[in-house]
Amino acid sequence: MRKIFVAEGLRLCEEAVETSEIEFGFYTGEFLKNERAENLIARLDKKIPLYEISPTDFSRTVDTETPQGIALVVRQKIFVPEEVAGKNLLIALDGVREPGNVGTIFRTADAFDCGVIVLEKTSDIFNPKTVRASMGAIFRLPIARMTHREFLKLMREKNFQVTATAPDSSAKIYFKRDFTGKNAIVFGNEAEGVSDEIFRAAEKIYIPMPGRAESLNVSAAAAIIISEVVRQRMCSN
Amino acid sequence: MRKIFVAEGLRLCEEAVETSEIEFGFYTGEFLKNERAENLIARLDKKIPLYEISPTDFSRTVDTETPQGIALVVRQKIFVPEEVAGKNLLIALDGVREPGNVGTIFRTADAFDCGVIVLEKTSDIFNPKTVRASMGAIFRLPIARMTHREFLKLMREKNFQVTATAPDSSAKIYFKRDFTGKNAIVFGNEAEGVSDEIFRAAEKIYIPMPGRAESLNVSAAAAIIISEVVRQRMCSN
Repeated sequence: MRKIFVAEGLRLCEEAVETSEIEFGFYTGEFLKNERAENLIARLDKKIPLYEISPTDFSRTVDTETPQGIALVVRQKIFVPEEVAGKNLLIALDGVREPGNVGTIFRTADAFDCGVIVLEKTSDIFNPKTVRASMGAIFRLPIARMTHREFLKLMREKNFQVTATAPDSSAKIYFKRDFTGKNAIVFGNEAEGVSDEIFRAAEKIYIPMPGRAESLNVSAAAAIIISEVVRQRMCSN
Repeated sequence: MRKIFVAEGLRLCEEAVETSEIEFGFYTGEFLKNERAENLIARLDKKIPLYEISPTDFSRTVDTETPQGIALVVRQKIFVPEEVAGKNLLIALDGVREPGNVGTIFRTADAFDCGVIVLEKTSDIFNPKTVRASMGAIFRLPIARMTHREFLKLMREKNFQVTATAPDSSAKIYFKRDFTGKNAIVFGNEAEGVSDEIFRAAEKIYIPMPGRAESLNVSAAAAIIISEVVRQRMCSN
């Protein structure tokens, strides 16, 4: 069985053509309104089966509320864990549930050249909302799925330091932790945080918040910590 | 005319009762399923007009796809610019368009004790998606609306340093800029960046990205820079 997902809209479909294996595509007559769209269609038409369908059928098929009228069915890329662990900064998602958050974290991870590990109970990484929020990062990022046990074993073997944002009396302020070595940072579920397995195995950090909000959005927390890792590495050079 | 917005769901409505003036509320019979919901209804019933409506009418009225069955019509709080400028870290939104981004930035701003200034062309800050993504920050944050001209004038008068993330040959890496004084950070439109008025007046910074993504989500960029300001202030004490 071929595992696939759907990329929608001009910009994402252009990126898909550059980076991914595409099974087939469909579009509406209305999509062909400008040169950029016509170029994409011409290019796709040489490579893959391409179907023109009615706007009504298109809207029924795709997820967006105001679709642009182009969608591609893209092959899911599979990375082996060792490839992902070739990066020296890894982001692990441990039950992150909201597709928009997962996609935004992918975009941040891609900007900062991270590998991504998707642990159990995390939402479908090929959900259309995730794909959209990732702004093309889904096509480029090395992403591997694994169990908690496989993840922790791989991190030990490859000498990664594993850190999680989690409330604990041992937790350090995130910018007081040394991130200059090989690091995997785990982000947990929006409501429950990280799983017990990760909590037991990871060093704990927290983001001090002088204000009144109880917590940050998980994609905001990820941006803060990933950028701090990169800052430390740039400053230590 | 009273300016209002709608808060939906148990958690947000509980926060609204604690923090805001409420005009009236409505709920469905199905909402009263547990003690927490019953307590909220009992409490509201003493203070404001409360209407039970059918689930069908409720769904038609509110924005969420799977509504919990409680919504309150809340008075918009108005802050005068001077109140907002009482904070020594200000976040200005200059044409940020996506309601989820605006709400997530509000949540981050609240966590880090910022004031918020909403400039022209920014999306409606009381959009239901913004209110939801803010996770209650909308009830607590000091927020003022002003024009670019009023904003820049106020910043000069109050001795705020104005900084924007914008591509420019003069732009500094964000963590090389000294943010320990009074600072206003401006975040621009998702596609176009900050407006010309802000670009001309502000010091420019950028976030170095070793990876391949062209850009970060604006709420991720805001989290990175706001947390760096707070980190510098904590480290300089």
